Amino acid sequence: MQLRVRFAETDQMGIAHHAAYVVWLEAGRIEWLRGHGLLYRDLEADGVSLAVAAVEVVYRQAAYFDDLIEVRVQLLEARSRRLAFRYTLWRESTTGPALLATARTVHVPTDRRGRAVRLPERWTAAVVGLVDAESAPDA
Amino acid sequence: MQLRVRFAETDQMGIAHHAAYVVWLEAGRIEWLRGHGLLYRDLEADGVSLAVAAVEVVYRQAAYFDDLIEVRVQLLEARSRRLAFRYTLWRESTTGPALLATARTVHVPTDRRGRAVRLPERWTAAVVGLVDAESAPDA
Amino acid sequence: MQLRVRFAETDQMGIAHHAAYVVWLEAGRIEWLRGHGLLYRDLEADGVSLAVAAVEVVYRQAAYFDDLIEVRVQLLEARSRRLAFRYTLWRESTTGPALLATARTVHVPTDRRGRAVRLPERWTAAVVGLVDAESAPDA
Amino acid sequence: MQLRVRFAETDQMGIAHHAAYVVWLEAGRIEWLRGHGLLYRDLEADGVSLAVAAVEVVYRQAAYFDDLIEVRVQLLEARSRRLAFRYTLWRESTTGPALLATARTVHVPTDRRGRAVRLPERWTAAVVGLVDAESAPDA
Repeated sequence: MQLRVRFAETDQMGIAHHAAYVVWLEAGRIEWLRGHGLLYRDLEADGVSLAVAAVEVVYRQAAYFDDLIEVRVQLLEARSRRLAFRYTLWRESTTGPALLATARTVHVPTDRRGRAVRLPERWTAAVVGLVDAESAPDA
Repeated sequence: MQLRVRFAETDQMGIAHHAAYVVWLEAGRIEWLRGHGLLYRDLEADGVSLAVAAVEVVYRQAAYFDDLIEVRVQLLEARSRRLAFRYTLWRESTTGPALLATARTVHVPTDRRGRAVRLPERWTAAVVGLVDAESAPDA
Repeated sequence: MQLRVRFAETDQMGIAHHAAYVVWLEAGRIEWLRGHGLLYRDLEADGVSLAVAAVEVVYRQAAYFDDLIEVRVQLLEARSRRLAFRYTLWRESTTGPALLATARTVHVPTDRRGRAVRLPERWTAAVVGLVDAESAPDA
Repeated sequence: MQLRVRFAETDQMGIAHHAAYVVWLEAGRIEWLRGHGLLYRDLEADGVSLAVAAVEVVYRQAAYFDDLIEVRVQLLEARSRRLAFRYTLWRESTTGPALLATARTVHVPTDRRGRAVRLPERWTAAVVGLVDAESAPDA
């Protein structure tokens, strides 16, 4: 999943603001699910959200305006009441990709009132087979 | 209503990004309503939103990180199916306030499905008396 | 230029927040320039920014999470000290595109200190030939 | 340091988006520094930024539109080349504050080119005395 750093995402340090990465993780996660036939908009339409229980980002190199960023996603853990993802963010360049950041998110399925629920059966069945706890994301 | 320019709101030009002003207008509008005894969260809880039909901003001077910004709000027009606000944004400084931007927003009350509805009676009654189409905001 | 509505761009009305459109206009403008061989990152690297002097957006239909949005851009006016763009935003759908919003922005070239300057010669020469004041954007 | 959850910060789950917390941490950190006589805008003016090397947030309860949030900040570690902060975020309510999230950030002083530098002497001297690694933030 690729995206371009928006001008609005830069700050006066001249780099992408660190909070933008959290939005990119989300965009990458949603595209990763789509790539596996799971539409997050369908889950939401069924009244289930993947509430974010934790986020960790380690920043290694700055991202700049107009950089082409690749978000690689790996499912670390999948249970009916808890999902965990790992991410690496890369800058595309002519000399090959440069690692910008690594990250991790933990999610809890919730209903419209924010109460923890089980993931729908179809989703649980699908994600269990996608867990890849060993290797690096997309390596 | 006062707010500080957040670091996250700056861009690589070293100024507050122009989209941040649109968020500040909203914050100013909500505080202006609160100041007149109208809680926007209550309106939303009743299933009515003030959908934004139009926004215009004219930028005069840049705002910088950590500037203290004052948002002055004036209600231009209040009908059960349409509200219009005018705004001026000022930077507080030791030499007096400097005008940063003027703006205008138009709103249409909508229900949870996005259909145009009438504003609740209590709100219509309240806002009609607050219209001030003549003078400059808070001048 | 196409983009997907990010989850982070939605608000509790269940639609894309109106300030997000201002960011999309910027992204569309930058891609439009790229499509004509003009890299905004190069202009910035030369110390010239296209400061935003005015923004107007008229919202017609809501955009939703995960919608595929097309931003069509038209250059209305190009002088060495002033550029004006017009935009239409469309939702892609199986029944054809739906018009979500129309917009307009005005820009003033500035140096790193925010003072108005002339656009570099190469840019002025290029943009003058791209003005299309008559027709609707990309229609 | 207190702030109100902005409407623009909500998402279609009806809660504050998780990326907004990262912006609130920054606002809280900057106010905490100001409260100790250290203006981050001055540091930036001297060409030194506190680049974010890592962020961790653990979300416990959702924050809602218009909630009054208190950001409590504690300096965990202060060296000339590395700072670490801990945070707790609380919702103010009539029944007392509710813990919404805990967080941690790590920072590296950098120059305008993004290279790691030492914190200016005045800042190092000031922050070393503010380290409070034992107690909970502001408890």
